[in-house]
Amino acid sequence: MTSHLSPSPHKRIYIQEVVTRDGFQAESAFIPTEEKIALIDRLSNAGYAKIEVSSFTSPKAIPMLADAEAVMQGINRVPGVEYTVLIPNLKGAERAIAVGVDEFNLVMSVSETHNQANLKMGREDSFKGLSSVIDLAHSNKIAVNISLSTSFGCPMSGITPLKELMHWIDRFSEKGIRGITVCDTTGMANPAQVQEVCETVQAKHPNLQWTLHFHNTRGMGLANALAAVHSGIDRFDSSLGGLGGCPYAPGATGNICTEELVHMLDLMGLKTHMQIDTLLECSKDLQNIVGRTLPSQLLMAGKVDRVYKAPCQI
Amino acid sequence: MTSHLSPSPHKRIYIQEVVTRDGFQAESAFIPTEEKIALIDRLSNAGYAKIEVSSFTSPKAIPMLADAEAVMQGINRVPGVEYTVLIPNLKGAERAIAVGVDEFNLVMSVSETHNQANLKMGREDSFKGLSSVIDLAHSNKIAVNISLSTSFGCPMSGITPLKELMHWIDRFSEKGIRGITVCDTTGMANPAQVQEVCETVQAKHPNLQWTLHFHNTRGMGLANALAAVHSGIDRFDSSLGGLGGCPYAPGATGNICTEELVHMLDLMGLKTHMQIDTLLECSKDLQNIVGRTLPSQLLMAGKVDRVYKAPCQI
Repeated sequence: MTSHLSPSPHKRIYIQEVVTRDGFQAESAFIPTEEKIALIDRLSNAGYAKIEVSSFTSPKAIPMLADAEAVMQGINRVPGVEYTVLIPNLKGAERAIAVGVDEFNLVMSVSETHNQANLKMGREDSFKGLSSVIDLAHSNKIAVNISLSTSFGCPMSGITPLKELMHWIDRFSEKGIRGITVCDTTGMANPAQVQEVCETVQAKHPNLQWTLHFHNTRGMGLANALAAVHSGIDRFDSSLGGLGGCPYAPGATGNICTEELVHMLDLMGLKTHMQIDTLLECSKDLQNIVGRTLPSQLLMAGKVDRVYKAPCQI
Repeated sequence: MTSHLSPSPHKRIYIQEVVTRDGFQAESAFIPTEEKIALIDRLSNAGYAKIEVSSFTSPKAIPMLADAEAVMQGINRVPGVEYTVLIPNLKGAERAIAVGVDEFNLVMSVSETHNQANLKMGREDSFKGLSSVIDLAHSNKIAVNISLSTSFGCPMSGITPLKELMHWIDRFSEKGIRGITVCDTTGMANPAQVQEVCETVQAKHPNLQWTLHFHNTRGMGLANALAAVHSGIDRFDSSLGGLGGCPYAPGATGNICTEELVHMLDLMGLKTHMQIDTLLECSKDLQNIVGRTLPSQLLMAGKVDRVYKAPCQI
């Protein structure tokens, strides 16, 4: 049965893993370099389009990812998988170039308040700094992606006006970047807003590689991903096991969970090309790495095709 | 901005609370009758279309709801809110008639295996028994709703064929019932399946009152609700705080969370007529009643319009 709601079942949806960057950076205990490398090596064979390996931020700012070089140099880079890293500034860019990466992922916030709180500078200063990084990337033939934090809403200044988001998209698009990630940093987006944003950005910049980055902070993560898919988006960030938190809401979940996203899209007949069983095994082991239960519902319940024996009354 | 994805923003979405039945029946400790009554009285002013108060099952089978009569007789019934109860058989129906209810909610499973496991009889025997209850309801001018468990999938026998679901819908529809609730009892539905089911059942039986009942067992709860809304469904069961579990998957969540569903639909511009702040207060207090943290992400993070102060780096 076909319908106005269903995207083409033959369309590939590209999954991008962020757990070793977005997830690990928020951990309280340092995860040994060899464990990071071993996890990435397993994930590299799970069908991802892209893996965000680490961040070349100052080790003082994010000590959890101080081993970015060692991780990049230690992993087996599988053909077909892009290995991207977060780059905050020229210094980080130079470190990344030294070890070789497939993509620079640059971050700034659409919200001025959030950019000040998170990056300790105004958006204009961020834009100026990132422009230098883009130039350096291009002179080294490295693709650039811009992740725009608080694209949908900012926990300090409220809902993000679409016009404000478009202003920064337009300015970055002029710099010859390859793609933009529209980030719902603290889980404030709703499916109607997602639809409007996705349709607008794609219509204005059809040649950019668009990624949507959702958080499940208020339970809407997969609903927003569904709205994005139905709006033509084919590329998503997600985090194994749903690892990662929201610093604004203690106890709340963070990034959408990779295995739950893949499980849903696969059931819908979309082609993620992902190995769901590998994801579930890695997610289970990740619980041992971080020493706690992860928010993945799928890890607890098992895939839909898991067969249970007759239970007590429900 | 209007689009093929957006339902009419003027359309009302009807919310039906199941926490005091579906949620409480799974608790290990008996919740005092006066606490049940107090909670329902608060919820009665929160905008619900319907509240499932209790179950007139044998007190031996479900001791947690042995006080069904006392609860029904103790609550303040607010005009505009329908008070429904679960009725398993003629004996339960007579008990409910004695105290006066607005609707009988009758349950059977589309899956033969699940019906045997849950109700200890085959579907044909269930249908025969429920038919007698329907006749009794109609002779007492009480509306009847049928909740069809495992409409999308059964944890023991797999995905439910749509043809099998339609068979039981057709047979019940011939009995002159008012509505049918299509239940994803253990969270196995996916948005594509939801769309197909919702479109099919409404097209075949446009005059029945359709309710969708989702569980978030595998994280797809709100995505499935979104798919149902876009398929024309305007009535949902949900449970305050997401209370309720899945007996097949220890630790996994159960029913979709009322406040998260309402929060999402309200943000989308749909009209639930619900008092979200009342829901959040009741959900917070419910944690004290059951003595543990509930799976409501919204309760932890707060509504989208909650303003946070500048945090540390994220």
